[in-house]
Amino acid sequence: MSAATGSPLPRPGEGAFGKERIRVLYEVQAAAGQIEAIAQAIAVEQSVELPLAAITDQRVLDHTVGQVHLIRPLGDASGAGDGDGIVHARVDHSPLGRRGLDRYEVAIDLALDTMGLAGSASRGLDIAQMMNMLFGNTSLHAHVQWVDVEWPECLRGTFAGPQFGLEGIRDLTGARGRALTCAALKPQGLPIEALAKLCHTFALAGIDIIKDDHGLSDQAYSPFAERVRACQGALDKVRDATGVRTVYAPSLTGSPRRLIEQARIAEDAGCAMVMMAPSLIGLPVFAEMVADRISVPVLAHPSMGGAARIAPPLLFGSLFRLLGADASIFVNHGGRFAYSRGQSLLIAEHARKPLLGTRAALPVPAGGMTVERVPEMLNDYGEDVMLLIGGSLLIAREDLLERTRAFVHSVHAHGRA
Amino acid sequence: MSAATGSPLPRPGEGAFGKERIRVLYEVQAAAGQIEAIAQAIAVEQSVELPLAAITDQRVLDHTVGQVHLIRPLGDASGAGDGDGIVHARVDHSPLGRRGLDRYEVAIDLALDTMGLAGSASRGLDIAQMMNMLFGNTSLHAHVQWVDVEWPECLRGTFAGPQFGLEGIRDLTGARGRALTCAALKPQGLPIEALAKLCHTFALAGIDIIKDDHGLSDQAYSPFAERVRACQGALDKVRDATGVRTVYAPSLTGSPRRLIEQARIAEDAGCAMVMMAPSLIGLPVFAEMVADRISVPVLAHPSMGGAARIAPPLLFGSLFRLLGADASIFVNHGGRFAYSRGQSLLIAEHARKPLLGTRAALPVPAGGMTVERVPEMLNDYGEDVMLLIGGSLLIAREDLLERTRAFVHSVHAHGRA
Repeated sequence: MSAATGSPLPRPGEGAFGKERIRVLYEVQAAAGQIEAIAQAIAVEQSVELPLAAITDQRVLDHTVGQVHLIRPLGDASGAGDGDGIVHARVDHSPLGRRGLDRYEVAIDLALDTMGLAGSASRGLDIAQMMNMLFGNTSLHAHVQWVDVEWPECLRGTFAGPQFGLEGIRDLTGARGRALTCAALKPQGLPIEALAKLCHTFALAGIDIIKDDHGLSDQAYSPFAERVRACQGALDKVRDATGVRTVYAPSLTGSPRRLIEQARIAEDAGCAMVMMAPSLIGLPVFAEMVADRISVPVLAHPSMGGAARIAPPLLFGSLFRLLGADASIFVNHGGRFAYSRGQSLLIAEHARKPLLGTRAALPVPAGGMTVERVPEMLNDYGEDVMLLIGGSLLIAREDLLERTRAFVHSVHAHGRA
Repeated sequence: MSAATGSPLPRPGEGAFGKERIRVLYEVQAAAGQIEAIAQAIAVEQSVELPLAAITDQRVLDHTVGQVHLIRPLGDASGAGDGDGIVHARVDHSPLGRRGLDRYEVAIDLALDTMGLAGSASRGLDIAQMMNMLFGNTSLHAHVQWVDVEWPECLRGTFAGPQFGLEGIRDLTGARGRALTCAALKPQGLPIEALAKLCHTFALAGIDIIKDDHGLSDQAYSPFAERVRACQGALDKVRDATGVRTVYAPSLTGSPRRLIEQARIAEDAGCAMVMMAPSLIGLPVFAEMVADRISVPVLAHPSMGGAARIAPPLLFGSLFRLLGADASIFVNHGGRFAYSRGQSLLIAEHARKPLLGTRAALPVPAGGMTVERVPEMLNDYGEDVMLLIGGSLLIAREDLLERTRAFVHSVHAHGRA
């Protein structure tokens, strides 16, 4: 009996979402002959977490226990191949790759009614519980990676997705028919006036969006409120003098209470965008902040994200977007981090592809990019992208304005030859 | 100038914590001849995130840039050795172990004033920013693991640590001079009455603490509020009838709003303990919930934690404890997960050792344990431990009471021969 409604509670497999399953894809490293047992163990771990012999309830056995849908060999674990496309988003710099073990794709069907969709309205999905059931305890197995999810159509409308998305950011910046440009305020340790001066220079050079270095938080040498007001103020002055409107995205970091306070300060200062790192603050917090507290586009930062043994296209592409990221920064190949070209392009694809009716998010490849690589990157990603260049601009020192103008020009001129 | 105080802001290296550094230990997999460059790159990534040539501010160069303190070879990456003890908490089932690469311990000193300790009082540390600066972007490097931190004494009083700790849980349960016992409510999918009946049986058998399966959240078939009231109610009845007081720890899961609501429901129902999974809800959220919303001991669950490339003793031992876990569930060796004995014992050590003046937390080894292993586990861990057995009790089915009594008896009798 439900105390709230007086009606009997549904059993597993009954009621809304009761019959629905969600297919989860893992990449598993296993010795030959063990993969069936391992796949079955994952199916149990991510559902009832109990030996089947300990389950006396037939409905739980029939409905709640996860089911292995598919096991497919992917070749030797030491191979560097990208698979044949059925593995949607394999981590190619992954912990998988030990001697004598084979790689397998394993697809497991889990009951959707375990995900905490109970009760209330359209945003009833509990993000923490979803992560818990899709990868929680299995994350403790070093030989398993969470690769992708086949999102069932019944979840359409469940995820808010981006509030503005790729097109909303074009509306905000006025950037049409070309890629967008982004620069970063760094290094941390600079006094506030120096950061505000960087804003001024970037704005004069025609940058679309300026983001905080993700290391800037609420330090004694540049407290959040004063930094945000000074940086936004510098941009407001450029706008008043020249008509150029450059967007500033301060980085919100901390516990929920700090995040709420920082979001208010940013809004009061007139910031037209904010940045958050979902894996740092917690994915459920990120989603709730977007839904409840943020009325401007949100730029997601990947900090702490790579620590997860979750395939980057799934995490930085699909998941961050489903939870509300309007733009997502990720590692481009050939920079400071060892991602492959295929991996980076797949992240962008996950950010932009049709996905449960949510808005497309703006992909932001980054991580040691240079002005010289602009044409190559735009050929790779197309124009629905924002290029973020940090250190390679600032290394110009006294020639920062000129160098930033070269970056902006290179992006604007691309494809107009 | 600080708008709030009118006094000039400190520069890096000035003011409270200005001169302090925090030493962070990583394990890095690298080809011979590359380790110096990689260590320097980590020091830069975790501080200014900018080529040094791009930094014009001498104070930032002198103070804010991270410094490589030590590089020490640990032997071939494919080796399975435990190191020689200087690596405090190496992950031994780690992604490190590729062919032709060597393993190194790298110690890097970071400026403490980057961690967001600014402004306010003793709990000024921003947990998200601390994680960001200690491992944020470096988490994107698959060949680097975050192994440990040498916590500087100046952080004493900064972390709240457990509110009750190991001794507080002994006070609560009355368990003295012996290890504690814990059982789990599972599988999910059971109706509420069946879960309440399990509580009744476990209590009659003399279990100290009953925890929710971490998969139980707010599902249609067992909504949080009704489940918690029913389970606590079952234990209240046993207490009234027999005087036996068994503690129930419901699992709180979700976004901050859901967590706050669930904490209130649990408190209203009279629950004397709660469980949360810090890596699932977000470490900063966990710390803030403990500080602001929870007035009973907190049991930490490792779900999603293993996904982090953070050494388990650091994450489940030190970090969860510093953020307020009174007890911490972790994987014991020889069960369903591939942890070594040394690794598991080291987690317990991190939970109990002197650490910045915080209370010791109660270690809870688990993950496929059996009644038969009780003597061995108690010999390994000593009596300051709580043994958690789940499936191995429930598999007794109609003999559950008897089997649970055997578990309780085995723990109580240990060492009294």
